[in-house]
Amino acid sequence: MKAFAPEQIKKAANVLRGLAIDEVQKANSGHPGMPMGMADVVATLALDHLRVCGSMPDWPDRDRLVFSGGHGSALLYALLHELGFGLSLDDLKGFRQLGSKTPGHPERGRTAGVEVSTGPLGQGFANAVGMALSQAMAAARFNAPGAELLAHWVWVLCGDGDLEEGISHEAASFAGALKIPRLVALYDSNGISIEGHVEDAFRDDTPARFKAYGWRVLACDGHDPAAIDKALRRAKKLSLEGPVLVVCRTTIGFGSPNRAGTAKVHGEPLGPDEAKLAKKALGLPEDESFHDPADVRALFEARAAAMKRLARKSERVRKAALAADPAKAALWDACVGKTVPADLAAKLPAFDPAKPVATRAASGKVLQTLAAELPWLVGGSADLAPSNKTWLDAYPAVAPGDFSGRNIHFGIRELGMAAIQNGMLADGFFGVYTATFAVFADYVKPALRVAALSELPALYAFTHDSFAVGEDGATHEPVEQLASLRATPGAVVLRPADATETAAAWAVAAASRTAPVALFLSRQNLPVLDRASGDLAPASGVARGAYALWQGGSGLPEAIVMASGSEVALALEAARARPERNVRVVSFPSWELFAAQPQAWRDEVLPPACTKRLAVEAGASMGWEKWTGAAGRVLALDRFGDSAPAGVLAKEYGFTAQNVGAALDALLG
Amino acid sequence: MKAFAPEQIKKAANVLRGLAIDEVQKANSGHPGMPMGMADVVATLALDHLRVCGSMPDWPDRDRLVFSGGHGSALLYALLHELGFGLSLDDLKGFRQLGSKTPGHPERGRTAGVEVSTGPLGQGFANAVGMALSQAMAAARFNAPGAELLAHWVWVLCGDGDLEEGISHEAASFAGALKIPRLVALYDSNGISIEGHVEDAFRDDTPARFKAYGWRVLACDGHDPAAIDKALRRAKKLSLEGPVLVVCRTTIGFGSPNRAGTAKVHGEPLGPDEAKLAKKALGLPEDESFHDPADVRALFEARAAAMKRLARKSERVRKAALAADPAKAALWDACVGKTVPADLAAKLPAFDPAKPVATRAASGKVLQTLAAELPWLVGGSADLAPSNKTWLDAYPAVAPGDFSGRNIHFGIRELGMAAIQNGMLADGFFGVYTATFAVFADYVKPALRVAALSELPALYAFTHDSFAVGEDGATHEPVEQLASLRATPGAVVLRPADATETAAAWAVAAASRTAPVALFLSRQNLPVLDRASGDLAPASGVARGAYALWQGGSGLPEAIVMASGSEVALALEAARARPERNVRVVSFPSWELFAAQPQAWRDEVLPPACTKRLAVEAGASMGWEKWTGAAGRVLALDRFGDSAPAGVLAKEYGFTAQNVGAALDALLG
Repeated sequence: MKAFAPEQIKKAANVLRGLAIDEVQKANSGHPGMPMGMADVVATLALDHLRVCGSMPDWPDRDRLVFSGGHGSALLYALLHELGFGLSLDDLKGFRQLGSKTPGHPERGRTAGVEVSTGPLGQGFANAVGMALSQAMAAARFNAPGAELLAHWVWVLCGDGDLEEGISHEAASFAGALKIPRLVALYDSNGISIEGHVEDAFRDDTPARFKAYGWRVLACDGHDPAAIDKALRRAKKLSLEGPVLVVCRTTIGFGSPNRAGTAKVHGEPLGPDEAKLAKKALGLPEDESFHDPADVRALFEARAAAMKRLARKSERVRKAALAADPAKAALWDACVGKTVPADLAAKLPAFDPAKPVATRAASGKVLQTLAAELPWLVGGSADLAPSNKTWLDAYPAVAPGDFSGRNIHFGIRELGMAAIQNGMLADGFFGVYTATFAVFADYVKPALRVAALSELPALYAFTHDSFAVGEDGATHEPVEQLASLRATPGAVVLRPADATETAAAWAVAAASRTAPVALFLSRQNLPVLDRASGDLAPASGVARGAYALWQGGSGLPEAIVMASGSEVALALEAARARPERNVRVVSFPSWELFAAQPQAWRDEVLPPACTKRLAVEAGASMGWEKWTGAAGRVLALDRFGDSAPAGVLAKEYGFTAQNVGAALDALLG
Repeated sequence: MKAFAPEQIKKAANVLRGLAIDEVQKANSGHPGMPMGMADVVATLALDHLRVCGSMPDWPDRDRLVFSGGHGSALLYALLHELGFGLSLDDLKGFRQLGSKTPGHPERGRTAGVEVSTGPLGQGFANAVGMALSQAMAAARFNAPGAELLAHWVWVLCGDGDLEEGISHEAASFAGALKIPRLVALYDSNGISIEGHVEDAFRDDTPARFKAYGWRVLACDGHDPAAIDKALRRAKKLSLEGPVLVVCRTTIGFGSPNRAGTAKVHGEPLGPDEAKLAKKALGLPEDESFHDPADVRALFEARAAAMKRLARKSERVRKAALAADPAKAALWDACVGKTVPADLAAKLPAFDPAKPVATRAASGKVLQTLAAELPWLVGGSADLAPSNKTWLDAYPAVAPGDFSGRNIHFGIRELGMAAIQNGMLADGFFGVYTATFAVFADYVKPALRVAALSELPALYAFTHDSFAVGEDGATHEPVEQLASLRATPGAVVLRPADATETAAAWAVAAASRTAPVALFLSRQNLPVLDRASGDLAPASGVARGAYALWQGGSGLPEAIVMASGSEVALALEAARARPERNVRVVSFPSWELFAAQPQAWRDEVLPPACTKRLAVEAGASMGWEKWTGAAGRVLALDRFGDSAPAGVLAKEYGFTAQNVGAALDALLG
């Protein structure tokens, strides 16, 4: 379609500014500064470049638009309103109100057109890297000469805050190393931060920094539609070879006579008087709220109509191409649907009870099967694949120019890795696992939280899961990480007891569609429990969170020992050494899965009448009282670890069958 | 003293290599790659530049040496052994064994000469930035023309892993913005990572990147002592104007014929055969372990003797300068001793019960008093000072060229801020607080953990502490952050109920010498409890973690409602509305402080005979069962928040006095 005139775009930008001002004003809460500063860039992008379709918000080949600074949501909502994404003026009037489609920061799943939940600065930037990586990987699978099923751009708006955050380094460096194409970052460079002037804390030569990452860098006056348009055209072209940063020189709060260019305009409503003055300065009717004139609506409607035609055509091309290639069609459906074969569990490897194996190693073996069965599964580690055992042996790694692989070298960038993973998941083509040492779950956490609240099924293999890390010492030995993730709403934590439970845990993980799932896996070898022996329950109980693994008698047990991971074998050994007592051993890999079971199951596993309960876990005790009750006991580790061979530490901290037995005896009386 | 000849340094380096090989070999665990790769750099640094004294390890004006890659500890220990820091060959033989002075990663407090605990990559780099900042701030206070009491260098060894981590961006960008002097980073650039080649994930032009931060960048052959020496001399000079990066081109595992330059040498013992081959290649006796020849010992002893003379002279100068300036001497003693006036509590502001105030605002007021009373207290926020209320009004900010201020603009870099804080604390001159939103405690956590395990009293003001953040929505509303930090060994969490408790909490924090202390503070106004009214206990109970605030009768209560922070007022209102029932309200600001009390106090506050217990807290329920017991109830928030006015959310989630009363009624029966 024909490009709009700069004056048209300028007017459209001012209408977006007015809507954003009024959203914030009506809520009496929010951030007018970024919307007013970036409206010209956004209007130019939306009217002349952004390939999205409000009536087909999930069009696979749509451009992705991310506001990494989620506080600019008022502008995003105004834009989605204009582009026909089903946001009415009333929705804009409900900005920041309970249950509205227009929450304070964009929330994935709540608003059509919102690709990811943003707010924690820098994460959206990394999400965009993940989306572009996902597209490149999908394109390598589905595109063919003459049938470019995936050929869109990922646009991410970011500000000084995003680029100060360390995650921006991790994601930008990663994107540069892989020369990820079709990624364009629009940097809102306005010189202002909450404490005043950006330069008080941040004097980077940002263009030079991004060039050092291998990005191409452009710049433009962020208030000149013609200059913006020129930069965007050039950026799209350059981005075919690798990521591009466009530095948009802007004035925060542009249009506000008394607040533009100040820290005050960032996060406070303008107030009625300044709002009027701003509207006047912007050529908007100063006494009207939510002004949405027909001429500007017509611009966006024209754009929307053109995009609808484009989307329909794109979908016709895609369907024809897939119809002509059943194998590709099957792969497409598997990727988009994340289908899991009904007989997956049966195909997973079995493990020999005669051969102790670390659950990380069992996990590595299971992953090879999953890779074969689940073509949509890809993943990688933060440079610990040989330790995490997460390499998919039959497949190459993605590399610059060749994104057909399934292994990803994320580099030593745990948080960036997890946020890139979120972006890949949001993109919709791949299920993605990532991996690092369990103690570094702390680094992953801020992105895991976003995965949980936006219901992205991010899978994590956290290996080296207790003091049994041993010689590497306290900095490498997790203690509180299980508790921290268990306390996070929506996340599922699984700590399998042996190789067999590890396979069952991966089956649960692979089937997750809305919850992030974290597997905690041992560095050290663990016995493979001999479930064929007849006295142990099958590992299928893992899916229910906790199950009675063994009992020394029948009926109501005298006492229950519950444990997770490496401690289950200790509990079993201690209980078996007391054949005269009717002790039940409960394997308890997941609190969240257990809590989600019907009360009947929970009472069956942990009969309320049995109050003599011992919990054993090589981590912080916090929260186990919920399961042991007041009369119970917890054998845990509420201190940091040490550097020593794991066996020495196990004795030092009391994680031996003998000591578990002693605790059990004390409980039994 | 005269510089050593390159051949002498080369031989010393090879002896250090041999010791490191044997440490790892004897432990059969550890990392030979970095020690062998960086031995030439370290030997050159130690013999000709590093100003440290083994017999005076706490010499205030010593150079600081940080191995950001703590996995290179075998080299650090070999060096500390040679320089007379009290590490014997037997200590080296105890590498990675329980209770030794030579744990797998360096641990502050365990080994003289180890400045900070390192292991989590990148944090040591940020610690070094903090140490250099601390020196610059101390120098601004204590140096005078002709009496430069503080004029040392901070040397940090870092590798590709450190520079891939996002925290390296945060810390380097910060150091560049402030032009922090006397900071030299020695980059071990060896091209190898655990997954293989660094370039698979990391292709930064690192010199260009650091120049973009405002650093000066040098390079040298990391195996040529003369070239290294030249670079170090130049770096010292350049660093007087701002931070310097020296790119040392090295071969990982240098000297190992079959493993040098491979990923395998990074983290595995060489094995006996390759160890022999390496020793032979390095000119060391291949059948001898822990070879420590007299000629090399003599080199280090000569250096140590010279440094001892320097340290003694330095201390004489310092003492004379301080003796001549009693005000400066008093300030020095206060800074180093972190002295707190005995009457501090009495000087803290009192708050008017007629005027509700947010605890973040009360905290801001208290901080002004603390700043006046504690000259050693400095701090800042991750660009949220106006929201966190952490600005010290009477003092300027540190700025390039003027480090006399007490406010620090950390920028939007939460993790970097916290690790810089750790470095400042380890430096020894300042007590340091940092601040951000409570939900971003997740970002701070990896550094808070290191503070806890190395017993650094980092103080954190985490404001906006519950769903009451309101309109900013789920990404900005903490839920699980309290649980996460409470599960962390050694950390103290305090969530004061009102302004008066906030003052008491700050008094606890200011007195902490070995524990990090995190204050969780409200965004919203809270009632100031009227403790003069006679029926409320004084806020001095805060120091004991929990205390009976109010009781509706006497003797054993019928029920207890315990709460923290903003929920205490709700509990009080609910209990007071039931004058006929003998209900006790317990204010419970800190689990850790309460758990550390004698059993008698704990039983007095929570009498075991009273099992009807209700806990109320606007956060994850996890762990409250420990205090309520099985018969108790927990009114908490085990879900993510929403974007809406705080009052609307309070009703939605049941955090009203009415709903607390209903829960209490259900408990009372």
